[in-house]
Amino acid sequence: MARAVLGSLCLCWALGRAAPPNLLLLLMDDMGWGDLGAFGEPSKETPNLDQMASEGMLFMDFYTANPLCSPSRAALLTGRLPVRNGFYTTNGHARNAYTPQDIVGGIPDSELLLPELLKKAGYVNKIIGKWHLGHRPQFHPLKHGFDEWFGSPNCHFGPYDNKAVPNIPVYRDWEMIGRYYEDFKIDLKTGEANLTQIYLQEALDFISRQQASQQPFFLYWAIDATHAPVYASKHFLGSSQRGLYGDAVREIDDSIGKILKHLQKLGISENTFVFFTSDNGAALISAPKQGGSNGRFLCGKQTTFEGGMREPAIAWWPGHIPAGGVSHQLGNVMDLFTTSLSLAGLQPPSDRQIDGIDLLPAILQGKLIDRPIFYYRGNEMMAVRVGLYKAHYWTWSNSWEEYSKGIDFCPGQNVSGVTTHTQEEHTTLPLLFHLGRDPGEKYPLSTLCCYCLLSGHNGKLMGSGSPISKAVIKLSSFVELFLLCIFI
Amino acid sequence: MARAVLGSLCLCWALGRAAPPNLLLLLMDDMGWGDLGAFGEPSKETPNLDQMASEGMLFMDFYTANPLCSPSRAALLTGRLPVRNGFYTTNGHARNAYTPQDIVGGIPDSELLLPELLKKAGYVNKIIGKWHLGHRPQFHPLKHGFDEWFGSPNCHFGPYDNKAVPNIPVYRDWEMIGRYYEDFKIDLKTGEANLTQIYLQEALDFISRQQASQQPFFLYWAIDATHAPVYASKHFLGSSQRGLYGDAVREIDDSIGKILKHLQKLGISENTFVFFTSDNGAALISAPKQGGSNGRFLCGKQTTFEGGMREPAIAWWPGHIPAGGVSHQLGNVMDLFTTSLSLAGLQPPSDRQIDGIDLLPAILQGKLIDRPIFYYRGNEMMAVRVGLYKAHYWTWSNSWEEYSKGIDFCPGQNVSGVTTHTQEEHTTLPLLFHLGRDPGEKYPLSTLCCYCLLSGHNGKLMGSGSPISKAVIKLSSFVELFLLCIFI
Repeated sequence: MARAVLGSLCLCWALGRAAPPNLLLLLMDDMGWGDLGAFGEPSKETPNLDQMASEGMLFMDFYTANPLCSPSRAALLTGRLPVRNGFYTTNGHARNAYTPQDIVGGIPDSELLLPELLKKAGYVNKIIGKWHLGHRPQFHPLKHGFDEWFGSPNCHFGPYDNKAVPNIPVYRDWEMIGRYYEDFKIDLKTGEANLTQIYLQEALDFISRQQASQQPFFLYWAIDATHAPVYASKHFLGSSQRGLYGDAVREIDDSIGKILKHLQKLGISENTFVFFTSDNGAALISAPKQGGSNGRFLCGKQTTFEGGMREPAIAWWPGHIPAGGVSHQLGNVMDLFTTSLSLAGLQPPSDRQIDGIDLLPAILQGKLIDRPIFYYRGNEMMAVRVGLYKAHYWTWSNSWEEYSKGIDFCPGQNVSGVTTHTQEEHTTLPLLFHLGRDPGEKYPLSTLCCYCLLSGHNGKLMGSGSPISKAVIKLSSFVELFLLCIFI
Repeated sequence: MARAVLGSLCLCWALGRAAPPNLLLLLMDDMGWGDLGAFGEPSKETPNLDQMASEGMLFMDFYTANPLCSPSRAALLTGRLPVRNGFYTTNGHARNAYTPQDIVGGIPDSELLLPELLKKAGYVNKIIGKWHLGHRPQFHPLKHGFDEWFGSPNCHFGPYDNKAVPNIPVYRDWEMIGRYYEDFKIDLKTGEANLTQIYLQEALDFISRQQASQQPFFLYWAIDATHAPVYASKHFLGSSQRGLYGDAVREIDDSIGKILKHLQKLGISENTFVFFTSDNGAALISAPKQGGSNGRFLCGKQTTFEGGMREPAIAWWPGHIPAGGVSHQLGNVMDLFTTSLSLAGLQPPSDRQIDGIDLLPAILQGKLIDRPIFYYRGNEMMAVRVGLYKAHYWTWSNSWEEYSKGIDFCPGQNVSGVTTHTQEEHTTLPLLFHLGRDPGEKYPLSTLCCYCLLSGHNGKLMGSGSPISKAVIKLSSFVELFLLCIFI
């Protein structure tokens, strides 16, 4: 009862256009659903994130829009699927949409990014860390709504150390102030780098400055210590049971604890909405030394199985979000766009399709909003989740060619007919899973009994509309028919 | 600091032989490590157990003594490995030590069971639920220290409904009061059975009676709703995202919440030590409808991989155990024997080898006690864990013969050279895993670099002593050598 009243008050407050809260998005890089103690990592080495969860709300069913860094980040900042904002490819090689050195494109000027819109409500916007939406001048974050930047346009791959392929640059605002490995050291042998400490200090300084200025802020803390090559600063090396990857997680956990305490110390925690999540599933190709954990979910980064796209997620806003909450709302990084706008008292753009939804009713009032989750790989919609059912229209881990070279997105996991090395089409009769009974996608539901029924409904199933609405109609009908099959 | 002082006070209190606390062991049947929200089950449907964990101490590295019901329970109640207390076999069929109808043996009279010893300190002892240590009269729980019994000698398999193999009986103390399926209904079609409610009421009644009598009690609540055929009472059917198995877990969670609240209501929670765990890993052969989850661990019940033997575990004792604690103490169900004796102010028997250790320093003072974990299958010591290293001396999931019939202890999991269907010997050079970096046992550590070193240490490795001490010496040497290999 108290929770419901509090929730209503908060929502009224937000809708009443009072001073909007600060927005702090903590976006991890390649961190998996299973990497936090609160999500069952056996070493349970994330006390600060676990405390954040116990003081806020855990999202158990939160997704990325794409199992790769760039399209996921583009989706988060535009509120739109990668097939809409341009961050997709049609190539056959794992449908990678982006790699650091060999892509000339970036976020189109026609896209409206979250910070551009927040400016209208007086926000000061800063990105700390990885941008990944284009490294050429026209794609610079300060051309797309951010007021400040400390970080790099790409992943910290390297060192390349040659003129043809220079090391990845690091920027402060418009200025390139150095390069990874040269001015910002990463010791690939020991894994030592103090970058997370630098990013932490940048965050604390920005928050202090903004608190003094009285303007609301949007801080996008997009750090990358858990992306291979994984790193941690000296103090954290060897601090984890989990090796270097765990050291990186411990340092991030410690840093987030310091950021949240800083908000509390400055007295602005009740006016700062904080959301923690990751850009895609753990990169199991780099595990165990350089890759994280997707818990019991199938496969990892690059795939449209749960391990590739379900993310750890925590919302924290003391005094507004009831402590210890657990939500099964189907969420997506794109929702952070729409939810942030809602918190700022802004409407999403009406001149384009926005895929993200406003999560505030779920966060503040415990509501469950009906919406599907789309699992894309490049331009191919591989699967859809509606409620607890997930239908795969295509299954594929990676090619035999890659697999035979030792590239494995599903190490130690092999589900016959599911983790396929050829692209298998199931558009006529989707491969259906119940994610409540079978979160690991190991037991496809028997569809034989329904086959005749489905065949008889072809007209309905193949109704008109966009490919997406068609897919939803198709899935809804399929689920209905499936349930019908169970009860007849 | 406050925690340390509290811990010391508690230990002094226990050692000072004040009135001993009541003991409540909540032993689950085939429940897996990953079945609780606190251990990362995605549906997070165990609010009472999660709260128990937040008010008490979570054990992340707690084990059973054997991946099967009977030997695990025998080990718990005797504090001794099954190879010592007689609960082992030498057969080749998954080395099953016990099945309900075709075993004539049971717990030997020469074994001293926990309730027999607790009697000396004035305890009144009751078992509710599954005994599983012999169904013939001489093995009856009331012949082995229990004062009261409500439950059955075996699993609730059936119905057999014939004279040659009668349905499993249910006892109240010495009296057989009915049989499963006849007097105690289990509807195999719907999964409905109100047995957990009966077991709950038995527990609440016993606790109330004992509280009035002022005598300390030992209650062994060994319920079996999560053992196939899984069941739940009508109110809980359909209550879970996870299907019938999840319904059973929800009912158990609800019941445990009621038991803990009952202790609090009676004002005896601070004088009742409660421990929750399970007898072995989730039975993946029955998943997903009738089997649970072992989280990200490899394989399940019957195997000596982590999924077969690592258990969920929570200690709860308000006012004594600091809230929100997490322990990485290597624990074992056998420790519940020794720890319970310690709480009762008793010494373990000195005339025999006891394998369980007193966990109170870990529980009350946060200490880490150095001890190995042995993974047995029948009479074969398959693996040993020391610290974060686990050495497999034998690997085996199940036979090709069984596997070809569809019996799979590792569904969807296949780790080359590890989940073998032939019994593979590695006693000369154990298959080594680092469970911190690789809890899923997917990446055997490279041992090639050490092979020559190990060969040179054959004399030391093959030192004299019992098979167990030999194994520990062997493993310790091996770990040392392995570490040496890393640093040279």
